[in-house]
Formats: sequence, structure tokens, C-alpha cells
Amino acid sequence: MPAKEASRGNNHRIIDMTVRDHVATLTLNDPASRNSLSREMMTQLQENLDAIAADKNIHVLILRAEGPVFSSGHNLREVQGMARDETLAELFDQCSKMMQAIVHLPQPVIARIDGMVTAAGTQLVASCDLAYASENSKFATSGINFGLFCSTPGVALGRNVSPKHAMEMLLSGDFINANRAREIGLINVALPADKLDAHIHTMAQNIAAKSPVVVKMGKAAFYQQLSLPLDEAYSLTSGVMVENMRTHDAAEGLTAFFEKRTPEWRGE
Amino acid sequence: MPAKEASRGNNHRIIDMTVRDHVATLTLNDPASRNSLSREMMTQLQENLDAIAADKNIHVLILRAEGPVFSSGHNLREVQGMARDETLAELFDQCSKMMQAIVHLPQPVIARIDGMVTAAGTQLVASCDLAYASENSKFATSGINFGLFCSTPGVALGRNVSPKHAMEMLLSGDFINANRAREIGLINVALPADKLDAHIHTMAQNIAAKSPVVVKMGKAAFYQQLSLPLDEAYSLTSGVMVENMRTHDAAEGLTAFFEKRTPEWRGE
Amino acid sequence: MPAKEASRGNNHRIIDMTVRDHVATLTLNDPASRNSLSREMMTQLQENLDAIAADKNIHVLILRAEGPVFSSGHNLREVQGMARDETLAELFDQCSKMMQAIVHLPQPVIARIDGMVTAAGTQLVASCDLAYASENSKFATSGINFGLFCSTPGVALGRNVSPKHAMEMLLSGDFINANRAREIGLINVALPADKLDAHIHTMAQNIAAKSPVVVKMGKAAFYQQLSLPLDEAYSLTSGVMVENMRTHDAAEGLTAFFEKRTPEWRGE
Repeated sequence: MPAKEASRGNNHRIIDMTVRDHVATLTLNDPASRNSLSREMMTQLQENLDAIAADKNIHVLILRAEGPVFSSGHNLREVQGMARDETLAELFDQCSKMMQAIVHLPQPVIARIDGMVTAAGTQLVASCDLAYASENSKFATSGINFGLFCSTPGVALGRNVSPKHAMEMLLSGDFINANRAREIGLINVALPADKLDAHIHTMAQNIAAKSPVVVKMGKAAFYQQLSLPLDEAYSLTSGVMVENMRTHDAAEGLTAFFEKRTPEWRGE
Repeated sequence: MPAKEASRGNNHRIIDMTVRDHVATLTLNDPASRNSLSREMMTQLQENLDAIAADKNIHVLILRAEGPVFSSGHNLREVQGMARDETLAELFDQCSKMMQAIVHLPQPVIARIDGMVTAAGTQLVASCDLAYASENSKFATSGINFGLFCSTPGVALGRNVSPKHAMEMLLSGDFINANRAREIGLINVALPADKLDAHIHTMAQNIAAKSPVVVKMGKAAFYQQLSLPLDEAYSLTSGVMVENMRTHDAAEGLTAFFEKRTPEWRGE
Repeated sequence: MPAKEASRGNNHRIIDMTVRDHVATLTLNDPASRNSLSREMMTQLQENLDAIAADKNIHVLILRAEGPVFSSGHNLREVQGMARDETLAELFDQCSKMMQAIVHLPQPVIARIDGMVTAAGTQLVASCDLAYASENSKFATSGINFGLFCSTPGVALGRNVSPKHAMEMLLSGDFINANRAREIGLINVALPADKLDAHIHTMAQNIAAKSPVVVKMGKAAFYQQLSLPLDEAYSLTSGVMVENMRTHDAAEGLTAFFEKRTPEWRGE
């Protein structure tokens, strides 16, 4: 069953989803709010992620945005209006859960950035498996400018870049350009804007052509082992290799390799 | 109460401290010993750090040095003279405690390097939150050259740069230049010597203009979450975000943001 | 007792070993199989590593390969033929053990790459302490192309480079060139092919001239502390510094430093 587009009763739909050739594209489509991660936006994102996670037809997810701002992070009007701690706690928990849902999504997630990214928007980019940006894009963790340190964005940022680079962004709130973001490891590549989509399309098609069950297994193992000591990381992943070899697709992949033909995955 | 300059009875003062516009500057001022981290130097550093930690007037600390050597690390004459294990253990414990005091200092610490840095001197740079160096600066973890592997410097170094880059420095004892140090993530930026102070001044003023209570909360959370698994890191920092929102300065910051005016922090 | 060349009954010797001036060189010499990490290759590697670990005459190990392929990773014919889980588990355990034997080897290990590296071959490079490659070398974690995600290579890769760079290699299976490998931290330096050996020779001689007992102590401590929280990392390494100071070679190193002469190590 293919993933459905999020439908929220009377709520305006602020995320669009398309699926083509096993590649889903989610578009943050609330440019009027600079694609802020309002509760509604996060709820719709979570719903879409949950649906995509369950949809075996989807092999790759591209996350993009409409308008000149990829995402400005939390909706500050909304945050300001939350007087009680429980409501705030719910908001940040919802956000942290959604960011982790990207990391735990069976499918690889590619961020496609063409514009400005701030605060939890940068966290969103850092949480994706891969990120490609146009050269005119820029990134900040700007919460410090209005008295709210980007502590949760720092989790994702600090797992992508050196502490000195993370702290410079977190303490200054200053923007870095796409080339600097590439240099420090926040994104994979910075490209001329008119080459961005072709590059991402090629990468997405490349990954969509792999066995999705094998990708799922490998992606999960990669992030799980990262926080383990070396010996435990090897115990875990040695077991995953055995499990991987038990799949139909590994047997088919090896056979196809020796027969010099394209493998026919079953996703099993 | 403003932090006092260290006063050590009859001891010569080998650290100078100035405070201006909420920015403290500590100057290692023992060029005759190449600013070695002698017990006395570390004691005075610790005293100054403790005083700064308690001084709410100070928002940022710049760490710099007098003379052509930023710091040559441990005082080898002193180390050589320590026959007994307990005395040595005390020395290394004192050093490790002082390095961690920088990491745990409520205020961001900026290293300002214009010259040569070796062994525990490089550890000192790696322990700071930010580091800016003149292009003619150079860095080594040179202990291996005289039979004392830089194991404690490796803790700070290994949290800044890739293991391959750390091991190359630790095993060879060779110097890397400032540009290479920038490339591998040991420092943020390498600059022409005549632009160094202006750059650091701008950054220090930028950070000094943030809410110190929010900076303190965020800096502590950042380093704490770095060694946690992802889910625990998010649990911790989601809680910190709520705590942050409870401060006067977050409320003021958001209000000022919407009123398009400069926030007036209270540090509360 | 010097390490012996591996001798495996009737088996063909597919690893060559030479020792000169305290520098051992292991050459993967099975170009017909693209230096695949067959069980036999891994067994011979393990035997050589075990012998080298016990050989105090050897101060540095260089790992190189004969032919245009440094290593193609697991022998896929062999993997394909392993029907039962236990046999597969043994294979991956053997491989993980061997990779960790490099990390735990008392001597620093330098990978010398001049050619193509794939899958567990890339893991081998990532597991070495240092890596130098000719500019025409290229690296991939290509298992995903035949349905076997490089989960164990991801352990070593993910400890060398940013997650985004690791995931791009792991998910795409694409090659990166030597310059990109240098940029992301998988190797130390990329050099013109005709300068590769001279560069590695200089580095190997440099390291071979250090005290081997001190190098051993420091290398072990470095990797051990990397996965610890900061305070535990400092507790561990402060203790190692004291232990290091107890050695003959530290005393000699300091004395020689003050006497401005070359130290005479005893490796004690």
C-alpha cells in the first residue's frame, strides 16, 4: 500500500508528497512561515515519515522545500505562546522524535537545500543521511540570537562536524555558506543551483536501484554501531552481515555479480 | 564581584588578566619558559578560571600568550625532577582538571594563537571552544620525541580531528602549519597575523552580546550530549530547551525578535 | 625472535613480509584474486600480525599490495559458497578480529595504497593508523552493489569520516578518488605515485626512531580513550602518563633533550 499524503481534517496541507520510480519527495510547503517547524508541520512530517517507513514501494526519500527558506526551525510565535512547561516539553519531544524518525527511517533520506536554513532547520539537514545544497544556500543555528540556544540542533550538528565548527555556529549564530558547510561535513556537496536537481536525481536513482531490504539493514546498523566501543560495534555488525547474507537479495546479488548481469531484487 | 588577578604570595605572576566590555583576556606571560605549563602556571590558570567561572560580568574568555611560543606544554625540567609516582600523578591530574575546567567553564573560551604550540600546549588549544591562529603558527604533539607520548593531549586532539590526523601528529611529533590545523578541524580559522586580533575581537564581541545564562546552559549541554547515544542526547537536550525557555532572557529574546529591537538580557 | 614469514603447509604463500631497519612490510600478494580477503588471506594476515606483535625488533608496519588492486574485500566466491550461518559467522568474526588486531597492534600500521580499494579493502585502510595513497587510487564500499551492505567496513569508516561522507559511500557504492579520501579524513595524504614510497619511507623511519614501548603505550591509550566520556578519558590517560614516565625511555628521552643529544632507547 503506497504512503498517503497527509490529510489533517480541516488543516491546511503544508507538506506535499510525490512518489516516482521508488523515490518519494516531501516538500515543505509553507513558505509564508518560512517553512517553520510548527507543531502542524512536524505532525505532518511525522505522519508522512511513518507512512513512508511502512511503504515498501519507496526506496529513497528526498526532503526539499518550497520558497527561499528551506526551514527557519521552530515557529517562534508558537513557542512564545506556550506558557506551560508541559506544552513546551511536548513540542521539543515531538521535534526530537521526528528528527530521530529520519535517522531510523528504513529508507535513506536526502536533503535538497536551495536557500536559507536556520536553527532546527539546520538540525533537519544534519539529521538526513545525505545533503546536497546549491552554492547560494546558507546555514545557521541562530537560536542564540533570541535567547534560545540550539541545544537539540547541536545533537545532530555535533554528530556531523568537529566540535570547534559546531561551537562556532552555535555560539555566534552566524551563517556559514554552502561551501563552508561542505568543508566541515554538514553537507556532502555544494553545487551550482542549476545542477542541484540533476545531481540529486542521479544519486536518488542510484540508491533506489539497490536492494531496499539490504539498505534498511545497513543504515540501521551504521547509526547503531557509531556510539558503541569498537569491539561491540564489530560484534553487532558481524551479526548484521550474517543476517544480510541470509536475504534473497544477497544471494541474487552475488549470483548476478558472477553472471555479469543486473540483479533482480525482491526486497527480501 | 569581578574576578581578581591571581596573586600567589611571593610567586611571580605569570598570567595577566584584563577585562573589557565583558571580555576577559588571560595572557600566558612566561616567555622565558616558552609559556610552559609548569605547576605554577597551571595553578594560576586554574585560579583565574575559577574566578572567571564565578564572575557574571565576564561573558567570554580569550586565552593568548606573550612571546613567540603560545605554550610548549609541560615544564620538562619540573617533570624530570619528579621522582615519585604520586607527585607525577598529581601533576597530570592537575593538568587534566585544568583542561576540563576550560570545557566546563560557563563562558566560551577562544584560543588566540600566534606562534608555536607543542604537546600540552596543543591540548590547551584543542580544549578551547574556538581557536583562531595566525598563518605562521604551527602545532605539534611532540612528547613522543622525548619518550613521553602525548596521551592526555590525545584526549582533546582526538575529539577535534579524525583519528588518522591525530595519530599522524601523535606518532610523528611533527609540526603541522596553521592551514593544515584548520583543514583537519583543530582550529577554526587561520588568518594573516595582522588580521588576527580584529577577527577575534569581532567574534568575542558577538558572543559577549548574547545572553550569558543561555550560553552557559547551551555550552554545558553540547559537550555533555556529545558522548551519549542519540536517544539519550535528545532526552537531555530536549529538557535543556525547556529549562532555557524558562529564563527571563529567552522570553525577552523572543519578544525583542518580534518587536524588531535589540534584546536586553539580564543573564537570568 | 624475529617474526617468521607465514608458512601454511601446502598452501600458497599470498603474503610477503620483509623487515628492514625496524620497519616490517607486509605485501598482499594475490593479484589474481585482486588481493581479496579470502579466509586464507585473512589467516595469513592474522598470523603475520600476531608474529609482528610479539617481535620487539619491529617498530612500524607498512601494509601494501602487489598489483593494481590494493584489496577488493571479501572473496565473493568463497562467501557465496558458505551455505551455513555458522561458517559465515566465523568468516565475519575472523575478519573483524583481524581488523581489530591492526588497531591493537603495538606497532603503528601505515597503509600504502596505489590502486583500487573496495569493500573490506577500504575497511583495512580505515583500520590502519595512517594511510598514504597515490593520487590515482580510488576507494569504495561497494558491497551494496551486490546486495551485501558494508556494515563491518562501516565501523572503521565511520570512525574516520563524517557520517554524511560515510553514508554516501556506503549507500551509493560509488568510488571516491584519493583527493576526496584525503579531504574527508579516510587517508592522511594523497601524493603523486612516484613520490609515494619516499614519503612513506620518511614517515616510517621517523616513527621507527621513537621508543617502541612508549609508542605502544600511547597508541593503545589513544584508541581506548576515544570511546570514553571526557572525564573517564582523562582518568585513563593521566594514569598512562604516569606509567609512561616510569619507563627507562622517558627518563632517557628527557635527559637527552636537555643534553641536546639523540636519545638511546632501550624499549623499556
